[in-house]
Amino acid sequence: MEHWDHWPPAYDDEYLPDPGQPYWFPQRETMDPELRDAAILRRIQSVMRYAAAHAPFYQRKWAAAGISPEDIRSLDDFEHVPVVTKEELRRAQAERPPFGDYLCVPKSEVMRVHGTSGTTGRPTAFGVGRADWRRIAEAHARVMWGMGIRPGMRVFIGSVFSLYMGSWATLAGAERIRAQAFPFGAGVAGQTSRAVDWLLQMRPEALYGTPSYALRIAEVAEERGIDPREFGIQILFFSGEPGASIPSIRKKIEDAFGGRVFDSGSMAEMTPWGHLSESTGHTGMLCWQDIVYTEVCDPATKRRVPFGAEGSPVYTHLERNSQPMIRLLSGDLTRWEAAPSPCGRTYPVLPNGIYGRIDDQFTVRGENIYPSAINDIISNLAGYGGEHRIVVSREDTMDRLVVQVEHFSSDLAGDGDGVSSFRQLAKDRLRATLGVSTEVVVVPHNTFERSDTKTHRVIDERELFREIAGQQ
Amino acid sequence: MEHWDHWPPAYDDEYLPDPGQPYWFPQRETMDPELRDAAILRRIQSVMRYAAAHAPFYQRKWAAAGISPEDIRSLDDFEHVPVVTKEELRRAQAERPPFGDYLCVPKSEVMRVHGTSGTTGRPTAFGVGRADWRRIAEAHARVMWGMGIRPGMRVFIGSVFSLYMGSWATLAGAERIRAQAFPFGAGVAGQTSRAVDWLLQMRPEALYGTPSYALRIAEVAEERGIDPREFGIQILFFSGEPGASIPSIRKKIEDAFGGRVFDSGSMAEMTPWGHLSESTGHTGMLCWQDIVYTEVCDPATKRRVPFGAEGSPVYTHLERNSQPMIRLLSGDLTRWEAAPSPCGRTYPVLPNGIYGRIDDQFTVRGENIYPSAINDIISNLAGYGGEHRIVVSREDTMDRLVVQVEHFSSDLAGDGDGVSSFRQLAKDRLRATLGVSTEVVVVPHNTFERSDTKTHRVIDERELFREIAGQQ
Repeated sequence: MEHWDHWPPAYDDEYLPDPGQPYWFPQRETMDPELRDAAILRRIQSVMRYAAAHAPFYQRKWAAAGISPEDIRSLDDFEHVPVVTKEELRRAQAERPPFGDYLCVPKSEVMRVHGTSGTTGRPTAFGVGRADWRRIAEAHARVMWGMGIRPGMRVFIGSVFSLYMGSWATLAGAERIRAQAFPFGAGVAGQTSRAVDWLLQMRPEALYGTPSYALRIAEVAEERGIDPREFGIQILFFSGEPGASIPSIRKKIEDAFGGRVFDSGSMAEMTPWGHLSESTGHTGMLCWQDIVYTEVCDPATKRRVPFGAEGSPVYTHLERNSQPMIRLLSGDLTRWEAAPSPCGRTYPVLPNGIYGRIDDQFTVRGENIYPSAINDIISNLAGYGGEHRIVVSREDTMDRLVVQVEHFSSDLAGDGDGVSSFRQLAKDRLRATLGVSTEVVVVPHNTFERSDTKTHRVIDERELFREIAGQQ
Repeated sequence: MEHWDHWPPAYDDEYLPDPGQPYWFPQRETMDPELRDAAILRRIQSVMRYAAAHAPFYQRKWAAAGISPEDIRSLDDFEHVPVVTKEELRRAQAERPPFGDYLCVPKSEVMRVHGTSGTTGRPTAFGVGRADWRRIAEAHARVMWGMGIRPGMRVFIGSVFSLYMGSWATLAGAERIRAQAFPFGAGVAGQTSRAVDWLLQMRPEALYGTPSYALRIAEVAEERGIDPREFGIQILFFSGEPGASIPSIRKKIEDAFGGRVFDSGSMAEMTPWGHLSESTGHTGMLCWQDIVYTEVCDPATKRRVPFGAEGSPVYTHLERNSQPMIRLLSGDLTRWEAAPSPCGRTYPVLPNGIYGRIDDQFTVRGENIYPSAINDIISNLAGYGGEHRIVVSREDTMDRLVVQVEHFSSDLAGDGDGVSSFRQLAKDRLRATLGVSTEVVVVPHNTFERSDTKTHRVIDERELFREIAGQQ
């Protein structure tokens, strides 16, 4: 396997594949999965020995579980290594500020600080070592290569440059691949209209951001009478929210811009988060297992579910030595398959991407509801105005599910019939898929705020009720 | 001179001075200015020959002026090379999109795109070559070293990461110097309060931003009952606006944070803009002449004024080969001196920094007024509330100058006497310095919006009048 003999791996920053070659590392990407798994096992053993030697955090955790790196003789054995939770990381940093006792390199080796952007509680700081930063760049260059990005292409990065790791790893990857990076950012007042100007002026081949923000850019362009296809963008790649794997949203973005959509991304803690990335095969996100080892697990047992089944991903860094995550619990929800990808890569596939959270999922009258399922139905309706909200409330002991959905017209009074059949169709489809009856309220276009970053569509008023009750 | 024999220069990315050494390049920084000038002349000749060979823009411009690189046999000869204006760059890009015909490297060599953030007219794109980016990092590491920043120190970058070159060059310099860069950003709603949390949690040794934004951070901290000195910041360095060289603002920042303030910065086009940077000598910004050659010129003749005199800087890149600027006219205003700096560097000094614009300067009843002079007086008043506005209007043919100034109290009714003596003192001092009588209106604390970036304090209502008149 290319340059994979030593751990931590070191790559040649000058290496570039031939532009006609579809793979960055042909052998690693297309090898027999069983041989790859054998190599991954050896790598896991190295990472665990390294973590045990450098991180009191893992020493404590594994000692308490009665496990040592030597016990891991198979990938099945590895399933017994206890998972790491975000809460544990937060606690470790509070006790050993600022990076926690899972920092495995001297503080002088840390070249970058980023962190979680949570607005409540102590945020978690990421301390990224110098060598890790190069490996992050290498990994992101690899997956961007898999999307068809090549040296010299212009890559417009339309996402916030702050704590958010999405922007930074994309920038590092774009630089490594010898693309022309245009780190424009997002989130500042008035910036979207300027983004439209710059896209027209610079005509980048590729755009990175969140799906909501790409749609926002398209909307602002159209308001100004500009067809987003004029930008000439061929590759639109996304992370940060599940939208890019939802067929209706993907179609809407591809129709608006005239380019191809690629979904990617796992968690900021797992940077290079691009280890989950779609390729030109377009069969879903691939799990680039030789960058980060993904196990889709039963949320209860934390053991792998078979291919074809749904579960929550658990991630293990195979190439990072500053704050290596070993079996980090994501809390996300996905389904994986062993189906080969038309691109020739032999990685497991997530055909529907990451489509929910174990904890996002809410229950209405005993039925499990995933917001992504509602998003999918609603945004596929002809006449959909671009945004919606899901409001869950409780009247006495009865749950009430209301979907407030924008119609494309800005004045509903003049379109009585169209609106009522739109409402009825939404109601029917939601009931058929969710199994519970749903109220649908149609509102005019542009009722809801558009977001530059993640859009929070679920308003669960029952939680508020519980919180107030708890305070009394 | 360290690694200065070949052009374009190439530096060893692994080089780091001994932490106890005050200079990054001891010879270049402390040499006899006459010997440095001789070396600069040879360098200018190389840059001009290179530009003539690669940029139709310069070929045209110099042919029209009847000048060729061979004619430049002294720094006095160089004063006859016609200046470049921003308008010329804009025009060149409109005619030869996207980078203009002053791009001297193949487009495939461009690794970064940034640009001007002007809100009217076509913005100018910066195409920065890969080798240039390394030289920018090297130059910024040098000047940050001169401020006392050392490997391993944590550098919090609290300015917008988008088009603005300030943030990006600081980040590149911090990475090159092997500091721990924390690119936090600015400009996003709610971010200032989170900045306070992160400063408390990470306690960086150094902070970069704009002076207004540093004061804003201090204000937000104090509103939350946090003393900004708790952050433990030792070095606060700034660019983007003239505040850091204005004694009252500098004092306010140093008092609030308990660290030392360093001013820096010329123009985005001149990146590495840190070629104007204060050192631990604290005698004003030094002109690091071997990075960018600065000539302080008579705005009319575009020839150098003698040391001690005031003029407008004209800049020439000595280390960049992608879009080299040769005699770029800044339109800024400064005074330079040949006084040696206590730090031992032998560069010319700008004792009061960049304190105005040729075109910012406005005339009231025949007197030239610099907003910075007003800022200086107002912000030194005991009782000053942190913000003010300068409003110029015309009644019939008579100019009217009103300074609206915040008092620290939020309720002026209860403090009649204090406010009226504050108003009188402001009036007297403004009259004494400006030579024209000024109306002073005292308003409560927090009347004016605080800005994350540049604060626009001058409202010239006469311009508005002219614009409306022009449309009729």
